[in-house]
Amino acid sequence: MQLDNASVAQLREWESQLTEQYQAILAKKLNLDLTRGKPSAEQLNLSDAMDGLLQGNYIAADGTDTRNYGGLDGLPEAKQLGANIMDVDAANVLVGGNSSLTLMFQVMLTAYQFGLKDSASAWKNEGDVKFLCPVPGYDRHYTVCEQLGIKMINVPMTSTGPDMDVVESFIKADSSIKGMWCVPKYSNPTGVVYSDETVERIAKLGQIASANFRVFWDNAYSVHDLSPNAPKLASILEATRRHGTEDSVVQFASTSKITHAGSGVAFVAASAANLAGFKKFLNSCTIGPDKVNQIRHTRFLPTKDALMAHMGKHAELLNPRFDAVLTALGKAFDGTDLGAWEKPVGGYFVSFDTRKGCAKETVRLAAEAGVKLTPAGATYPYGKDPEDRNIRIAPSVPTVPEVVGAMEVFVTCVKLASVKQQLASLA
Amino acid sequence: MQLDNASVAQLREWESQLTEQYQAILAKKLNLDLTRGKPSAEQLNLSDAMDGLLQGNYIAADGTDTRNYGGLDGLPEAKQLGANIMDVDAANVLVGGNSSLTLMFQVMLTAYQFGLKDSASAWKNEGDVKFLCPVPGYDRHYTVCEQLGIKMINVPMTSTGPDMDVVESFIKADSSIKGMWCVPKYSNPTGVVYSDETVERIAKLGQIASANFRVFWDNAYSVHDLSPNAPKLASILEATRRHGTEDSVVQFASTSKITHAGSGVAFVAASAANLAGFKKFLNSCTIGPDKVNQIRHTRFLPTKDALMAHMGKHAELLNPRFDAVLTALGKAFDGTDLGAWEKPVGGYFVSFDTRKGCAKETVRLAAEAGVKLTPAGATYPYGKDPEDRNIRIAPSVPTVPEVVGAMEVFVTCVKLASVKQQLASLA
Repeated sequence: MQLDNASVAQLREWESQLTEQYQAILAKKLNLDLTRGKPSAEQLNLSDAMDGLLQGNYIAADGTDTRNYGGLDGLPEAKQLGANIMDVDAANVLVGGNSSLTLMFQVMLTAYQFGLKDSASAWKNEGDVKFLCPVPGYDRHYTVCEQLGIKMINVPMTSTGPDMDVVESFIKADSSIKGMWCVPKYSNPTGVVYSDETVERIAKLGQIASANFRVFWDNAYSVHDLSPNAPKLASILEATRRHGTEDSVVQFASTSKITHAGSGVAFVAASAANLAGFKKFLNSCTIGPDKVNQIRHTRFLPTKDALMAHMGKHAELLNPRFDAVLTALGKAFDGTDLGAWEKPVGGYFVSFDTRKGCAKETVRLAAEAGVKLTPAGATYPYGKDPEDRNIRIAPSVPTVPEVVGAMEVFVTCVKLASVKQQLASLA
Repeated sequence: MQLDNASVAQLREWESQLTEQYQAILAKKLNLDLTRGKPSAEQLNLSDAMDGLLQGNYIAADGTDTRNYGGLDGLPEAKQLGANIMDVDAANVLVGGNSSLTLMFQVMLTAYQFGLKDSASAWKNEGDVKFLCPVPGYDRHYTVCEQLGIKMINVPMTSTGPDMDVVESFIKADSSIKGMWCVPKYSNPTGVVYSDETVERIAKLGQIASANFRVFWDNAYSVHDLSPNAPKLASILEATRRHGTEDSVVQFASTSKITHAGSGVAFVAASAANLAGFKKFLNSCTIGPDKVNQIRHTRFLPTKDALMAHMGKHAELLNPRFDAVLTALGKAFDGTDLGAWEKPVGGYFVSFDTRKGCAKETVRLAAEAGVKLTPAGATYPYGKDPEDRNIRIAPSVPTVPEVVGAMEVFVTCVKLASVKQQLASLA
């Protein structure tokens, strides 16, 4: 199928065939869901042994009784778990509660309202504050900015990460830009891994950006490989050390898609100065994190090898689901002008770009046919995809046959929406 | 001992005797600690069975898989646990993470920065914001206000709660007062339980206060009775309903001093409007709380009876420690003019008021003699006890013989500091 050069007659014929296919799907009264970027019950089962693991031993390696108050920045062994996940030094890690999103909010609140360095460094002192958002991206990042009144600027994603020419020119032109969101490995939703050159250029942004610039490096999928030959993400921490910009990046991760989602442990990795500023804030709002849950996690995943073996089991469950999505997309759209997508080898999503102006209609058609997709636009700041193209596909929760069934609906809806729109544009 | 009427010669004699006693204590090279308002290891043991309790059953009563994301305001059975602790309806409860202090910070941040009702209701719109702080009180409450730049005004505590005449006159005179901290049962540190009249008058503050006034009702010790005949705290929720002021109070509690401190579950109880405003904020910074820990707690403490039976075991461990403190104080100071104290029948503290200007010196003398006390002034906003009188005694962690030993030192230091100061004042 090539719509751009198709005649009206050809388009009409396709429209008629696709409408027939779509009607047949409607008759099936499906109820499938590709919206949720969360682990399946089978994946969660992998960590059920955590309950009861402590066997009455609540004492950490350094003698800390994890059952009592204190320890604002986490147990040493929990810092090491964070270091294993994020590929950083344990000394740079602070261990939080159950949510990396909460840590991101708290660090951004600190930077905006109180200052990560001191009160003079607070972004709010400078009036307008803007953040660069590689798009498509993660809607919860945007919500954090919106809550704090930080304006968001779209930056296009490429197959090697954010378009760094655009990033650098924005930053040089506008000193109110105080940071950028990044999901550097298996980016949500495109699945892209930032190239070494991209990581290098991001590490150097601190040299050209205005004071108190911070990259929020959400390494949510750092160990979420679908293959043992996974691409390796360059170390942003090492790169910033080389360039003297260590304070310009704050990293985040959690065990939410490693053990039990929402009942895990979250981490910040940052320079000593950033950690000190953040801990000053934390001290105003907590006595300390849940250390029992920390020790439960460190006993369950005591080494990097144990961690990677555990992630291998997730991959076994996720791989056939990703295969089902990518096979369906390839079969339907290879060699066509109906859409574009990356082929992720990790993470939780496949991101599909329709022809201009077809995403909303595709999502609507799929919903009517009983297949829920993430709302079109959700992957853009303010929910506004300026070209109405991007759709996020999340295949982890449904069974493989369900993914296959949902993708049949999806490709039909993409085709039908595309053909109708092309016909309308020629009318 | 009555210092006010004592002659200089008598004071000199006492000084000499007390100095001798103090020197004897110094020679013992003690190392005791009365600073920490946290459970002892024995108390923590009471909840060790929580680990392994789930036996592979992670499904909540309503079918929720607690191992996965979601459920911003908590499981129904966890709301009921909160309701059992706080003596409110489950419908008014939101279940948070491990820390009620974090919930207090978040609710105050929401009220200050974003508005609990809407953005127009944010306190920051009104310039100066002030909070009433019954003193002595809890230092972590003051830190929250300080972090947000909210000015604190001292209100004296009485044996029935905050001095309500003072509270009401402040509120009538100053519309920038936006709330008040309260620890209504076994107040930190005085151990006082607010009288029915105090609760009633606090419930009516919403009628005389300026818009968006909120009492922060930190019911941290609601079930922490030392006796089965514990005093009953009147229901502030019911009282506010009667007076049409339900939005003017937000309540907090946690299981931190019920199960494992810092690894428990925290709760907010509030009106539907306040909960809606707070959830809007929460949605910007978390996917949801740790529901596995919630279900772990609800299985461990499934009913109010189970909860109270569990608290009875805490009381068995705490009672001899409180007895040791109160016996020592009574023996040393009954009938003297050296100090005043309440006799708490619950909570974690005994609060002792020295003669004016003697608290710091008492704490210093005790520290030199190897007995750590909470720094004098810590129970006041900005760390400033204007009369330098209050000292917080926390007897839960040391053994009973240690409490006895520490109190011997304490009373000697109080006496020595008092006599020296009286001598100086006569010089």
